Amino acid sequence: MNENPYKQFSASFDAHLAAIVNTFPTEPANLYEPVTYFLSLGGKRVRPLLALIAADLNNKDVTKALPAAAAVELFHNFSLIHDDIMDKAPLRRGKETVHKKWNSNIAILSGDVLLVKAYAELAKCDPSILAEMMGLFSKTAREVCEGQQLDMDFENRHNVTIAEYIHMIRLKTAVLLGCSLQMGAMAVNADKKEAALLYKAGEKLGIAFQLTDDYLDAFGNTQTFGKQSGGDIIANKKTWLLLKALETANDGQKQELQHWLKKDDDTQEKVKEVKNIFSALKVDGLIQQEIDVYYKEAESLLLSSSAGKEKIKLFLGFAGQLMQRSQ
Amino acid sequence: MNENPYKQFSASFDAHLAAIVNTFPTEPANLYEPVTYFLSLGGKRVRPLLALIAADLNNKDVTKALPAAAAVELFHNFSLIHDDIMDKAPLRRGKETVHKKWNSNIAILSGDVLLVKAYAELAKCDPSILAEMMGLFSKTAREVCEGQQLDMDFENRHNVTIAEYIHMIRLKTAVLLGCSLQMGAMAVNADKKEAALLYKAGEKLGIAFQLTDDYLDAFGNTQTFGKQSGGDIIANKKTWLLLKALETANDGQKQELQHWLKKDDDTQEKVKEVKNIFSALKVDGLIQQEIDVYYKEAESLLLSSSAGKEKIKLFLGFAGQLMQRSQ
Repeated sequence: MNENPYKQFSASFDAHLAAIVNTFPTEPANLYEPVTYFLSLGGKRVRPLLALIAADLNNKDVTKALPAAAAVELFHNFSLIHDDIMDKAPLRRGKETVHKKWNSNIAILSGDVLLVKAYAELAKCDPSILAEMMGLFSKTAREVCEGQQLDMDFENRHNVTIAEYIHMIRLKTAVLLGCSLQMGAMAVNADKKEAALLYKAGEKLGIAFQLTDDYLDAFGNTQTFGKQSGGDIIANKKTWLLLKALETANDGQKQELQHWLKKDDDTQEKVKEVKNIFSALKVDGLIQQEIDVYYKEAESLLLSSSAGKEKIKLFLGFAGQLMQRSQ
Repeated sequence: MNENPYKQFSASFDAHLAAIVNTFPTEPANLYEPVTYFLSLGGKRVRPLLALIAADLNNKDVTKALPAAAAVELFHNFSLIHDDIMDKAPLRRGKETVHKKWNSNIAILSGDVLLVKAYAELAKCDPSILAEMMGLFSKTAREVCEGQQLDMDFENRHNVTIAEYIHMIRLKTAVLLGCSLQMGAMAVNADKKEAALLYKAGEKLGIAFQLTDDYLDAFGNTQTFGKQSGGDIIANKKTWLLLKALETANDGQKQELQHWLKKDDDTQEKVKEVKNIFSALKVDGLIQQEIDVYYKEAESLLLSSSAGKEKIKLFLGFAGQLMQRSQ
């Protein structure tokens, strides 16, 4: 991966987040140690970076967007802690998840306290725009919950369409990226239309990012990806890859896929064989094309904004880079 | 129980809450049905009533406090849904808990969406006081999480003192009642000192209410109380009753209590025998005295406020009435 062109913004956010973490009390240790542990696992901090980039696209002081940036990152971490319980995920960013390292009750509660902290940081925004920011943030947070519920509902359904899947990942992942950009713009009092345009671009990028995640879960490198490889296949997750494979498979391939979907003992063999079918059906190439469609939509939205073209290009290059991180 | 002297306020809040519930989407059903179900279980709506009463004590239009009232009630319901998962509680208000009726994952997520909704309603407060309201609300929410964590920590500790127990219930229960009163006062731009005084009075009442709950769990009537009778005894919960009993028991009684604490098969016998020890040690009378101390502290705080004495007396009568609801 090339160097992060927003190193300054990242450093500024990291310092801001570290200061927030320093305000956490030490007691009860079973509440705050998991929170501090989880935040220390790092991650790319894409969402807060988007908030700062949005401020910069509007040629404003990015530090004004720091409270919004903190809110989206804390919210994201809250949702990961709770999702990991629901998905029974053992690893996150290559390390034990909170419910594995402690237990589910502690993971529920430390997630809760992070969600509260997200709002507490958001409250530090300029009071003149706080109500509007709260409205967007709460709408987004509600949608993220809806997306997670749909994701769980899909586990028990056998007729999920690709359109339904895109709707689900839009809610679960994409709206928060749109919200991060829009809140960053709102934080510097950007033109409302520009801010809304950034939301839409972020949403498109979010879908592209999630589809990239689907691709990487099957075809990425475990070490750089930081998650269990083939985890989605093992869990029979109805990702774009699986839905497209089921849609395009011939009878024999369909039967073979159904066979593996029912098996949960020999997981290594399962991952290998399902990936073979994916490759035979070329869904790895098809998802790349789909990712490109959403990326291009984001690109054309961004190019229609009034921000400087150089800044837009830098941002698009960074977004493209994020999607190729570990291929 | 006497009639609720705040029938008008209750009706006004019920209508407000019903309108909020009407704004919930229907899909995903597995997210919003549990939320609607849980809110329909009712409850006394003490917290929103406190917010409206605080506005009234300041001789202001109570409808201005409705967003704050909704926020505290939605927050309270969020915390109950999550606490019920953690406490493995089968019943709430005489009906199945969300994690029992659906499952834990659905209970986690529908709790989350309620917490988000609490903030979304709070955002409807007057923008000029929103940041300050958010500060108090978030501090309180964080403390409620800390209280719940301490409560769980106490399960694995054998040296919990009564002082630690009071600290825990202050966080878990009392601060939200203080917050409800203070936010109701803030919502009508009451004098800051008056608002802070109401917080303190609410905190004292909250401790009195929780101690009453402890008493009723052992000695109350199941039908009117709406929870499993003796649930705390069965779960070996370190309530004020148990801690005081352990503190005042002679060696024989202490041995007997320890014997029952280790047993979890014959629960009916366990409840009966532990209650017998409680009665022998007169901890049922001692807790009533303790409740009275906190009630009196609240009373003297309220009487020192600048609100009209008639209104204060009405409120104190109502608070006292709440504490005798099912004895």
